Amino acid sequence: MLKIRIPLDLFKRNPGMPPGTPVFIGDQKIESVYVHLTDFDEDSVVEHEAGGMDDPVVKAEPQGTRWLNICGVHEIPVLEALAERYKLHPLTVEDMANTRLRPKVEEFEGYLYLITRMIYMDDKHELDTEQVSIVLTGQTVVTVQERREDVFEPLRKRIEAGKGRIRTAGSDYLLYAIVDAVVDHYFQVLEHLTVRADALGRNLYDNPQDDVLDEISDLKATVMDVRRDVWPMRELIARLQRDEAGVFSEGTRTYLRDVYDHIMQVMDLLEQLRENLDSMGEQFLSGLSRRMNEVMKTLTIFSTIFLPLTFVAGLYGMNFAYMPELQLHWAYPATLGLMLCIAIGLFFYFKRKKWM
Amino acid sequence: MLKIRIPLDLFKRNPGMPPGTPVFIGDQKIESVYVHLTDFDEDSVVEHEAGGMDDPVVKAEPQGTRWLNICGVHEIPVLEALAERYKLHPLTVEDMANTRLRPKVEEFEGYLYLITRMIYMDDKHELDTEQVSIVLTGQTVVTVQERREDVFEPLRKRIEAGKGRIRTAGSDYLLYAIVDAVVDHYFQVLEHLTVRADALGRNLYDNPQDDVLDEISDLKATVMDVRRDVWPMRELIARLQRDEAGVFSEGTRTYLRDVYDHIMQVMDLLEQLRENLDSMGEQFLSGLSRRMNEVMKTLTIFSTIFLPLTFVAGLYGMNFAYMPELQLHWAYPATLGLMLCIAIGLFFYFKRKKWM
Amino acid sequence: MLKIRIPLDLFKRNPGMPPGTPVFIGDQKIESVYVHLTDFDEDSVVEHEAGGMDDPVVKAEPQGTRWLNICGVHEIPVLEALAERYKLHPLTVEDMANTRLRPKVEEFEGYLYLITRMIYMDDKHELDTEQVSIVLTGQTVVTVQERREDVFEPLRKRIEAGKGRIRTAGSDYLLYAIVDAVVDHYFQVLEHLTVRADALGRNLYDNPQDDVLDEISDLKATVMDVRRDVWPMRELIARLQRDEAGVFSEGTRTYLRDVYDHIMQVMDLLEQLRENLDSMGEQFLSGLSRRMNEVMKTLTIFSTIFLPLTFVAGLYGMNFAYMPELQLHWAYPATLGLMLCIAIGLFFYFKRKKWM
Amino acid sequence: MLKIRIPLDLFKRNPGMPPGTPVFIGDQKIESVYVHLTDFDEDSVVEHEAGGMDDPVVKAEPQGTRWLNICGVHEIPVLEALAERYKLHPLTVEDMANTRLRPKVEEFEGYLYLITRMIYMDDKHELDTEQVSIVLTGQTVVTVQERREDVFEPLRKRIEAGKGRIRTAGSDYLLYAIVDAVVDHYFQVLEHLTVRADALGRNLYDNPQDDVLDEISDLKATVMDVRRDVWPMRELIARLQRDEAGVFSEGTRTYLRDVYDHIMQVMDLLEQLRENLDSMGEQFLSGLSRRMNEVMKTLTIFSTIFLPLTFVAGLYGMNFAYMPELQLHWAYPATLGLMLCIAIGLFFYFKRKKWM
Amino acid sequence: MLKIRIPLDLFKRNPGMPPGTPVFIGDQKIESVYVHLTDFDEDSVVEHEAGGMDDPVVKAEPQGTRWLNICGVHEIPVLEALAERYKLHPLTVEDMANTRLRPKVEEFEGYLYLITRMIYMDDKHELDTEQVSIVLTGQTVVTVQERREDVFEPLRKRIEAGKGRIRTAGSDYLLYAIVDAVVDHYFQVLEHLTVRADALGRNLYDNPQDDVLDEISDLKATVMDVRRDVWPMRELIARLQRDEAGVFSEGTRTYLRDVYDHIMQVMDLLEQLRENLDSMGEQFLSGLSRRMNEVMKTLTIFSTIFLPLTFVAGLYGMNFAYMPELQLHWAYPATLGLMLCIAIGLFFYFKRKKWM
Repeated sequence: MLKIRIPLDLFKRNPGMPPGTPVFIGDQKIESVYVHLTDFDEDSVVEHEAGGMDDPVVKAEPQGTRWLNICGVHEIPVLEALAERYKLHPLTVEDMANTRLRPKVEEFEGYLYLITRMIYMDDKHELDTEQVSIVLTGQTVVTVQERREDVFEPLRKRIEAGKGRIRTAGSDYLLYAIVDAVVDHYFQVLEHLTVRADALGRNLYDNPQDDVLDEISDLKATVMDVRRDVWPMRELIARLQRDEAGVFSEGTRTYLRDVYDHIMQVMDLLEQLRENLDSMGEQFLSGLSRRMNEVMKTLTIFSTIFLPLTFVAGLYGMNFAYMPELQLHWAYPATLGLMLCIAIGLFFYFKRKKWM
Repeated sequence: MLKIRIPLDLFKRNPGMPPGTPVFIGDQKIESVYVHLTDFDEDSVVEHEAGGMDDPVVKAEPQGTRWLNICGVHEIPVLEALAERYKLHPLTVEDMANTRLRPKVEEFEGYLYLITRMIYMDDKHELDTEQVSIVLTGQTVVTVQERREDVFEPLRKRIEAGKGRIRTAGSDYLLYAIVDAVVDHYFQVLEHLTVRADALGRNLYDNPQDDVLDEISDLKATVMDVRRDVWPMRELIARLQRDEAGVFSEGTRTYLRDVYDHIMQVMDLLEQLRENLDSMGEQFLSGLSRRMNEVMKTLTIFSTIFLPLTFVAGLYGMNFAYMPELQLHWAYPATLGLMLCIAIGLFFYFKRKKWM
Repeated sequence: MLKIRIPLDLFKRNPGMPPGTPVFIGDQKIESVYVHLTDFDEDSVVEHEAGGMDDPVVKAEPQGTRWLNICGVHEIPVLEALAERYKLHPLTVEDMANTRLRPKVEEFEGYLYLITRMIYMDDKHELDTEQVSIVLTGQTVVTVQERREDVFEPLRKRIEAGKGRIRTAGSDYLLYAIVDAVVDHYFQVLEHLTVRADALGRNLYDNPQDDVLDEISDLKATVMDVRRDVWPMRELIARLQRDEAGVFSEGTRTYLRDVYDHIMQVMDLLEQLRENLDSMGEQFLSGLSRRMNEVMKTLTIFSTIFLPLTFVAGLYGMNFAYMPELQLHWAYPATLGLMLCIAIGLFFYFKRKKWM
Repeated sequence: MLKIRIPLDLFKRNPGMPPGTPVFIGDQKIESVYVHLTDFDEDSVVEHEAGGMDDPVVKAEPQGTRWLNICGVHEIPVLEALAERYKLHPLTVEDMANTRLRPKVEEFEGYLYLITRMIYMDDKHELDTEQVSIVLTGQTVVTVQERREDVFEPLRKRIEAGKGRIRTAGSDYLLYAIVDAVVDHYFQVLEHLTVRADALGRNLYDNPQDDVLDEISDLKATVMDVRRDVWPMRELIARLQRDEAGVFSEGTRTYLRDVYDHIMQVMDLLEQLRENLDSMGEQFLSGLSRRMNEVMKTLTIFSTIFLPLTFVAGLYGMNFAYMPELQLHWAYPATLGLMLCIAIGLFFYFKRKKWM
Repeated sequence: MLKIRIPLDLFKRNPGMPPGTPVFIGDQKIESVYVHLTDFDEDSVVEHEAGGMDDPVVKAEPQGTRWLNICGVHEIPVLEALAERYKLHPLTVEDMANTRLRPKVEEFEGYLYLITRMIYMDDKHELDTEQVSIVLTGQTVVTVQERREDVFEPLRKRIEAGKGRIRTAGSDYLLYAIVDAVVDHYFQVLEHLTVRADALGRNLYDNPQDDVLDEISDLKATVMDVRRDVWPMRELIARLQRDEAGVFSEGTRTYLRDVYDHIMQVMDLLEQLRENLDSMGEQFLSGLSRRMNEVMKTLTIFSTIFLPLTFVAGLYGMNFAYMPELQLHWAYPATLGLMLCIAIGLFFYFKRKKWM
């Protein structure tokens, strides 16, 4: 069955609702909201887990850089507490709760707001996406996820280990590191898709089944869906690079250039995959039409050889009282000979026409 | 029947008519013109209904922000009275009366003029559109609709309830709220189209009827029509955001950014719908050609098996006087055996060729 | 017959001829040149007709705004007299005489030169175009037409009646009014094309004849030709609006914006027509292939049912001496029964395959 | 045979060769190099022919404007002498010798360098192109051609006759006149192509032969090749018009605008030709598929009518001993009647289905 | 088998790895790293080979211009030593080790970093690419290759010979010369592809085999792959030409313009090749469908001629007791005559329909 790849819950929002009214739109992917806090500076790292925004550690002001990771957006009050804590605009909260938005970067008074999109392949090899909102305000970076995945786990490990610039380079570098983690994850999805396309290509010749075309078109639709999600990410990173808000240090901008290269590589690879799938489809169809051609030729050869023969046989099967040749001794072998001549003649005719 | 989706009344205007001559072009959708007035400021809301522009309440100067909603554009004198009241350019009045125009924003001396397009699905699931002209002049917003729909009802409720910024943020915010209401309504149309496409996709496999292709092409035409109407709305909102006329406050501009995101999402969804319908069509056609293939193969297999057999039967149906084999006892079973061999031989030939 | 839609007289000009040598290129559409002069200001209108540029009234200096309308470009001396009178560049005269040019606007020292293209449908429903050159110099507007059509008649009537701004707004407004008249005329051509497309769409289902596709492709070619002529007009009007030469008053610019809207609407409608015709063509082709499918199925069903039956009949038509079943009393009805079984079996096989 | 339209001598240059090493690439189209010099000012014209650059007249400094036309680029020493005489950059000399370059304009210290492309149709109606390099340095214009064609003959005549601005307007106007001559020549090629396309269109209906499609595709390839050569000429002229080097007088710039119009017209006509050829191809294919349809219908009608009839005949040709109906007097006419009924029934069935 | 043209080792990098961690990605094409040093100024050239960066000659400061060519990127420590020596950013080292990147130019503090892509055709006529990183820092140019190919050999020879500007024009000219060598090599690949396409075109008519289409599509895929690699090189050279970093002298910029022309010519040729291959494919398919048409016509002609004849033969093969015409003396020749008439009639019918 061909699925319409537009989730219907997208239309849950009432028209005429005042703007800035947060409504949770999407699938609830986690039971209860979970807050993970990481405070760090050059010398120390403090990690803390909480169930909401009213936790005292969360409320305290951090010494160095703070990373507040909130998992689950279906509990509107948590988002509202967050908004109050960091003076977020109502529209920001509304956007955080609506998980069907396209990636964008918006500058508000006092903070920078990013919507990014994480892409996974689920167990059934279906595409699954997650909206990750990021707020950069002062020395704090807030990330708001839909679920409690370990996509940021390697980054957290790097903070703990204190390797690289991560501990010393401030919150703008942390923001970069988070966006980089999101983009890096795309390569995993790409690898999955490439491996599947490769397997399809291998099957195309070994056992060309009728539904290969459906599989190709299915995989291409997935590639297009990924492309649709990645494309605005490219814009987002390009805008971060231009740094209109002036929040990035010179050093971090060099690294942003690197993420931009990565996203361009992702786009290139997606384009290449699409082209590969297209030419697979064409090759399959051309093979199909070649086989059809062969079928038609076979039919024509058999028909055109046997139709005259059968006619001759029918001719001498007629019951007219006076058919003098029927009485001749050599008539039967002569007729057989005639038939053979017709058959051989047509055979060579087809041979010359290269139909055989 | 394939309808040309261009209304012929579009061509009602005489060439050579002086510019600025208002002529009603479109279908009359309401019997008589109806004027709805809403005056409000932070503390109070006054609502008033009138049958024309010469009502004393309408003529009076408002205290705070005024929203004048005029339903029905077929009575030219009402529009002319409106023009006189708010010093509108003759071209503006002409545009209000011609309901076949594309969305645009125009800056005139003393006011801003917008043409927006509302989209509905009528009871027969046909697309229906309505032109909504909006004039922003000082603290007054005039909206001119073709019919008396309740699209703005939720907005009016919000004004009465005094929730959000609506009561305090002035006429520029009211203009935003009206445009936002128009755009929000697109999502309802999109939902309708998505649900229909989804149903079509489901039917494609269960009972693929011949007219599915027509239905797909019909739905696609509707999607393209919506796209044609929404596309200039995108331009319109982008121009509002740039605020060349300098009528929007900083706060309202943040909200305009939000409408722009919505319209981009609408465009994305329309594009996605179109792609989905395209691949539905392709899948249907590829299924059709696969079945055609099967039909041809069946024909070929039957013909190529029975043609030689019938020939052999015809051969021994000939009436030659001297056909020695006819007299042999074992000739008949031998012939049957030969036929069986031919049939089995061809059967395996087709098997090897993967035609069966 | 498929016409090449490029007039061959286009290539009449000799290569190597010095630039600025006027050569009449096109079809002569009028016998002798005819000059129509309209002098007007707020209070009075003077109209005058002459056979050439040496008429004393034409030679006199006008009081207010002058509109000099010259019909027929095949008499080069008249154009040269015009050039001398208004100090036109040799290239301008060359362009006036070559009626195969694309619309453009050019600024020369002392005057503005426009080439516009008028579009008609002739009596045989064929597209016919006419080049209208317009020169704006001081308070004089010169229009140079190929024939003596009444396209400008309504405009002349408006000048006489003195309605609207036309009498008071000067030569720049007159220029606008002329361009507006040209563009307004496009709507008539569009109406003609829309009505024809509509009729075609209606016929598509009622009696789908073989040449519908040719008619569709013919109409589409006409739409494309109109588009080719209208497209540079859009550029022309956009350039007028930017007013690089600084000849338009603020008021006139507002009106130019209106013409621009009209030309955009024309482009939109042409695009929509093209799309409609495309989907008509596709629908016709898909209907054709559906019928073809049906034809093949019918053939296959008949063949596959009757081939085995005919074989069985042929089998018992063989003349072997020892065919014991031929002597059995019940053999004939049994054979008939067998045939019936085969037919019914195949019938249900096709039923299950949904071929019937 | 399908030719690859890329000349293989293009790859003659060794990689790793120092830049600025002139290597002759192309077909030698003339036996020995030939230098034609035209010195002129308002009052006099001096023409001189020489075999090389060491001719004393060539070496002398001209009084007024000089046009040095060199035919043949295969003798590298001549080009090197030219370079020394006018202080040309080594890259310029390399470009002059490589006749496979795309049109471009380059500004060097002290001179402007243009590569233009002349297009001919040779005697076998094949496209033939020639690279014409033009150098504008001070009051001298050097043109370097591959052969000794008379393309510039009309221009030379004009100089001799002293008509128009050519004698007085300096070397920048001469450069314009040369480029204009090149572009004007395109119209001849266009005329040739249009006439051929016209003839093809006429043949399409009169006698649609199988190779019409190949001819159409061949002509289209030629149109595309011309387009490929003309397109960068458009860029070249647009750059000349912008006059970044500041070598053109105001008057000459007006004329350059005229060449630009011409090249745009050429592009438009090429586009139109391509479209015409495309729709010719489509029309031919749709005619082909219509005929195929008819073939299939004929086959189906004959088969479905005669298959049942032949079956009935075969039925009563069976040799069963007990077939009571065979003995009935009226059985034979009744069978014939039955056959007629079947035939008529199927006839009306096909009639109703509009297959006949 | 259809290969997915995306190398899977591309995905070797772990997500979450700190940026600037060099990981070798690609195929190891050389056993051990090899360093080639060329120091030169106007008077002298010194060449030196080393196994690593700790060689004393490599460590010494050069007098004039130094070209350090490192072959093999799989030994990370060598790259790290290089980074330390020339103060390269960690991201640069990471990029050097990842051989799957797209060409780009990046400006870092103190140096310019380029990634270029060399293209080869290997022995099996497969496309093979190599990433060449180039660093320009002061008077030193460092090139980092994947293998020890002799692509730069001609350039080295030129340095030794001291021909042209190469010895005197400094490191920026050396950088140009290296990029020029890379681009010049594309022409070899293009030549190879053109020759192959030419051979394919020749075969198309002589012996059109079924797999020609696959070969065409294969060659086209290769052309597209080359295009994908060349396209960003065009951007790279355009950026070098703009010289935002200010490292190029005026003279070198003139030469960069020349490389840009070359790369544009490569793009043009690739485009032309693609078009040629496309029209080859179309021509093959149209030939195929023409042959199919012929096959169908043959089938139809044979069937429609022999079906009625066989029916007539079957008719008089019926065994009815009372078939009076069977007893007539002239019935048999009359029947034969009737059959002849039917055959001739149908023959002329097909003749008139131009099916024969």
